[in-house]
Amino acid sequence: MINPSYKEMLQGKSVIRELSEYATARGKEIGYENVFDYSLGNPSVPCPQDYTDVVIDMYRNKPSSYIHSYSPSLGIESVRHAVAESLNRRFGMNYETKHIFMAIGAAGALAHAFRLVTQPGDEIIVFAPFFPEYREYIRRTGAVMRLVPADTQSFQINFKEFEKALNPRTQAVLINTPNNPSGIAYSTQTIQKLADILREKQKEYGHDIFLISDEPYREIVFEGADSPYPSRFYDNTLSCYSFSKSLSLPGERIGYIAVNPKATDADILAVICGQISRGIGHNCPSSTSQLAVAQVLDKTSDLSVYETNMNILYKALKELGFTVVKPGGTFYIFPKALEDDAVAFCMKAKKYDLILVPSDSFGVPGYFRMAYCIDTEKVKRSIPVLRRFVREQYGVNG
Amino acid sequence: MINPSYKEMLQGKSVIRELSEYATARGKEIGYENVFDYSLGNPSVPCPQDYTDVVIDMYRNKPSSYIHSYSPSLGIESVRHAVAESLNRRFGMNYETKHIFMAIGAAGALAHAFRLVTQPGDEIIVFAPFFPEYREYIRRTGAVMRLVPADTQSFQINFKEFEKALNPRTQAVLINTPNNPSGIAYSTQTIQKLADILREKQKEYGHDIFLISDEPYREIVFEGADSPYPSRFYDNTLSCYSFSKSLSLPGERIGYIAVNPKATDADILAVICGQISRGIGHNCPSSTSQLAVAQVLDKTSDLSVYETNMNILYKALKELGFTVVKPGGTFYIFPKALEDDAVAFCMKAKKYDLILVPSDSFGVPGYFRMAYCIDTEKVKRSIPVLRRFVREQYGVNG
Repeated sequence: MINPSYKEMLQGKSVIRELSEYATARGKEIGYENVFDYSLGNPSVPCPQDYTDVVIDMYRNKPSSYIHSYSPSLGIESVRHAVAESLNRRFGMNYETKHIFMAIGAAGALAHAFRLVTQPGDEIIVFAPFFPEYREYIRRTGAVMRLVPADTQSFQINFKEFEKALNPRTQAVLINTPNNPSGIAYSTQTIQKLADILREKQKEYGHDIFLISDEPYREIVFEGADSPYPSRFYDNTLSCYSFSKSLSLPGERIGYIAVNPKATDADILAVICGQISRGIGHNCPSSTSQLAVAQVLDKTSDLSVYETNMNILYKALKELGFTVVKPGGTFYIFPKALEDDAVAFCMKAKKYDLILVPSDSFGVPGYFRMAYCIDTEKVKRSIPVLRRFVREQYGVNG
Repeated sequence: MINPSYKEMLQGKSVIRELSEYATARGKEIGYENVFDYSLGNPSVPCPQDYTDVVIDMYRNKPSSYIHSYSPSLGIESVRHAVAESLNRRFGMNYETKHIFMAIGAAGALAHAFRLVTQPGDEIIVFAPFFPEYREYIRRTGAVMRLVPADTQSFQINFKEFEKALNPRTQAVLINTPNNPSGIAYSTQTIQKLADILREKQKEYGHDIFLISDEPYREIVFEGADSPYPSRFYDNTLSCYSFSKSLSLPGERIGYIAVNPKATDADILAVICGQISRGIGHNCPSSTSQLAVAQVLDKTSDLSVYETNMNILYKALKELGFTVVKPGGTFYIFPKALEDDAVAFCMKAKKYDLILVPSDSFGVPGYFRMAYCIDTEKVKRSIPVLRRFVREQYGVNG
């Protein structure tokens, strides 16, 4: 019989996906250039030419057995080694090959990290605003997600609420910096304070608490932002990474977990990930993408367009009187809606072909997310439309 | 804290992997050409040149956004459509796009299929001999694997034992034909009888019983073998496929589930797989491999070497007096060992640098598996060594 618990999930559709589907349909009607689609976090810049060149060169000059053989379940050894070296160079870490587990994007990395350090019934603390899929990712491990309300002044961690949420069942804390949807990067001060609290609580509870750091936007950081590497501050850290955004390769599904060398059982955590893979049918990213990514580890796509777009939008939103915290990275911005009901606000915007995502599924009411991974020209054209929308609907004259 | 249930799995090492590691180490000592490594099922022939050409052409001429964008969680629509059409052409089926779910190799396909049609505590029937990883794949879903002993005369289904194993908790039956490790293809008669029994039991128990058909060796079928497409015989069939063997692409991790259009809830089963993916961090095969495979669906690598190797080995084994059933496909052969203890037999063979896999982990005692996906020249050179081994150790003169 069909498993009813999955069948019932069909009811709960993703708001983001629905809006994106609407934008596509509307685009067919009036021309996609006339729809200001801020719904989806799909990178808008091409992958680096170097990546393309590496793949073509490999397919031309290397034997099939080199490119296409089974990868070990932890990932291709030379690739894991290259990832460790790159992280050491860039963040002053001491990773060895054994600390790296190659994963199918950040989703694959998180699926392993959650199972690695929790058992059913354990709690994982998540900070609002958060990527809505975390809820499903965690629920399906049997662990419980405990949500800490947002500090909407800064979108740094709300430490008062965090301390209330901590309890002896806390086995892991999940952070996502730079953050989807707020665009905020946690500061050195924030990470330091978080680490101090976790160390104290580890002692108090007499067990490890792992910091699971979801970092797909690590490479998209804007001028002046303070965005440190979390693992430098706390030994029990699992850094989960995806190349989807930095190399514009979301379809290739490649990322990794980097286990802090000083974590408890650091030498076997990646090996245990290989065991977890057996149960969930994971079996590592494609060998092509592993081998190719290893050649361009210190490169990125031209990510400057995201900062350009952010500056245009931030300035316009401020001029229109929106309450909004300036993003330190990512390609998201998260302003306060002009009425309490964010869904109603976004539905009104939709009439102007402005596709905004209401904040409710991110765990904060009354805000909206704009994903500005679109052409700058379109961002510019959207500003007068945004102005008209808020004037006509809310009487705002910016 | 680290999840102890995964940590304890580290104790149970894979026999096949250990033997393969030994073969590699021994190869470094005496030259790999002198080690007759029959341990691993890694395809020995290159992928079709067409596949390589398609990838190079795509990387040269298509935009990054075409190749590397997020794939929908069910797979790229045009790819799913092409898979359906190819299966319809080749097996006279009536699949539509909605019946195809793209998966990360057969392991990914099975991880979804098991979760789709069972709940914790349900039983999945498996026939010996079986691929040892099935045990872990099933255990981690919470379902129970019920093993039907082998019919060692033919390695078709042991129907007497099958009927004993069936009970109201049976929610799925897993078959793997052509079979790893026996090399046997289930005949039309076998599949027909299996389907008849399942239909009868569905009626008797008042619930669906799904046939999960694991078919990575479907394209490796030898002259004269009767190897029908199981889904043609039974409506509630989920056909799980991988391109690892037919296109020699194990590292690319690409396969699919094809839902029989007449299965219960056929229209939503693939959609539910997309929900299952969210819980296990799956998120479909790489977009590159999806787009490329869709261009070569009706092609295969040059698989003839496997039949050549099989014929050489089968003849030699028969001449040496081994009890062995002639394979109908795959690149495995599964003879009876010359003593009851298959591990002892294989350990003795190891001294001759013949790497054979004892049958115990396949659910049948007293046999051994040879994976002959190696060069024909090496197969030929191994015969005198095999002869010397059985003469010296067992006094057999072939």
